[in-house]
Amino acid sequence: MSATIYDSKPLAARMAEELRAEAAQFRKRHHRPARVAQLVAGHDAAAEVYSRQLVRSCRAIGLGCATLAYPFEIEEEELRAEVAALNDDANTDGVVLLLPLPAHIRQRIVTDDLRPEKDVDGLGSRNAGNLLLGFPSFIPSTADAMLAVLRDADLSVAGSNAVVVGRSNIGGKPVALVLLRQNATITICHSYTQDLQERRYPRGEYGTAGQYHC
Amino acid sequence: MSATIYDSKPLAARMAEELRAEAAQFRKRHHRPARVAQLVAGHDAAAEVYSRQLVRSCRAIGLGCATLAYPFEIEEEELRAEVAALNDDANTDGVVLLLPLPAHIRQRIVTDDLRPEKDVDGLGSRNAGNLLLGFPSFIPSTADAMLAVLRDADLSVAGSNAVVVGRSNIGGKPVALVLLRQNATITICHSYTQDLQERRYPRGEYGTAGQYHC
Repeated sequence: MSATIYDSKPLAARMAEELRAEAAQFRKRHHRPARVAQLVAGHDAAAEVYSRQLVRSCRAIGLGCATLAYPFEIEEEELRAEVAALNDDANTDGVVLLLPLPAHIRQRIVTDDLRPEKDVDGLGSRNAGNLLLGFPSFIPSTADAMLAVLRDADLSVAGSNAVVVGRSNIGGKPVALVLLRQNATITICHSYTQDLQERRYPRGEYGTAGQYHC
Repeated sequence: MSATIYDSKPLAARMAEELRAEAAQFRKRHHRPARVAQLVAGHDAAAEVYSRQLVRSCRAIGLGCATLAYPFEIEEEELRAEVAALNDDANTDGVVLLLPLPAHIRQRIVTDDLRPEKDVDGLGSRNAGNLLLGFPSFIPSTADAMLAVLRDADLSVAGSNAVVVGRSNIGGKPVALVLLRQNATITICHSYTQDLQERRYPRGEYGTAGQYHC
């Protein structure tokens, strides 16, 4: 099978256009811009790159973006109180919790405080559960982007063998579930997989490569 | 690789013994037996077999089991009210919702009403999400039984290739996630899989066969 290199730029431009129109409609209807709040605890180089990109994207589309930064030392209870306040804030429509959180904060406790309808990254158990069960949910962005690309390229993966490399909660697992929902046969490989090089492509018509998380 | 036939009877007897002791302790501590309530709406032959087995098992172990049967015609709202009442009932510790529900009732709405700590079959999105994310949760019984067998037989599947046939929410998907958590490389096959016979065993050291759900 020959490979096709897919150019995502036209799709990205079209999606930005659609989102701008949607954001403008929201503004008209609600007399305020839709607003995302991102919570950043401590410093992480990768998270900060992601955070700046989010601010830029929001600005380009016409969304409000509030960046709430906390020192590394913030207690779990304090962070939970901040999340609870955003849950109740009628002017905040989506909340992004930048990962990783400082090690003394239990991620699953904080992500589960987030109201599912504001958990736009799909980090909490309600959204994850609905993704697993095949019900409507927010889907972590890598998997969601892959869906958009498949749709744009008019590729059907039904009956195909898809190999997913990596099994993180925001990468490999949601990607695999999205492909399964599209009727692909899925194989999830990871750091314990013995014959990764051999498995990766000979049988898999579609491959996605992520990171190795255990 | 040669096959070993595993006899589950000694494990089942040992687990029943442990559960009897646990149930007796609960009774002593709470001055009442632990109680499971099962909700049955309409008639389904397979569900009724399961329901009778549950009653028998509860009796053998020393749990209370209340079977609440409703006519097929029960409205979603009424069933939700019954679930809400059991959520609030301090004498009900676990709730089993027998599937399938009548077609006019939305399963995901009713299962999501169930308090996660009483959702012993792990049907709701909170438990499903925690299973997906690798956090503690109730696990659907087929997958949970498989875990118990692996542990009892002292089988490590880490680094093995596991083939799961079927992708239902109570069968294939939780089984695959449990094997993934044990560090197996997993492949989920289903009705769209093209080369099922070939895939099933040549590469998979462990296979589980369920039903084909789409």
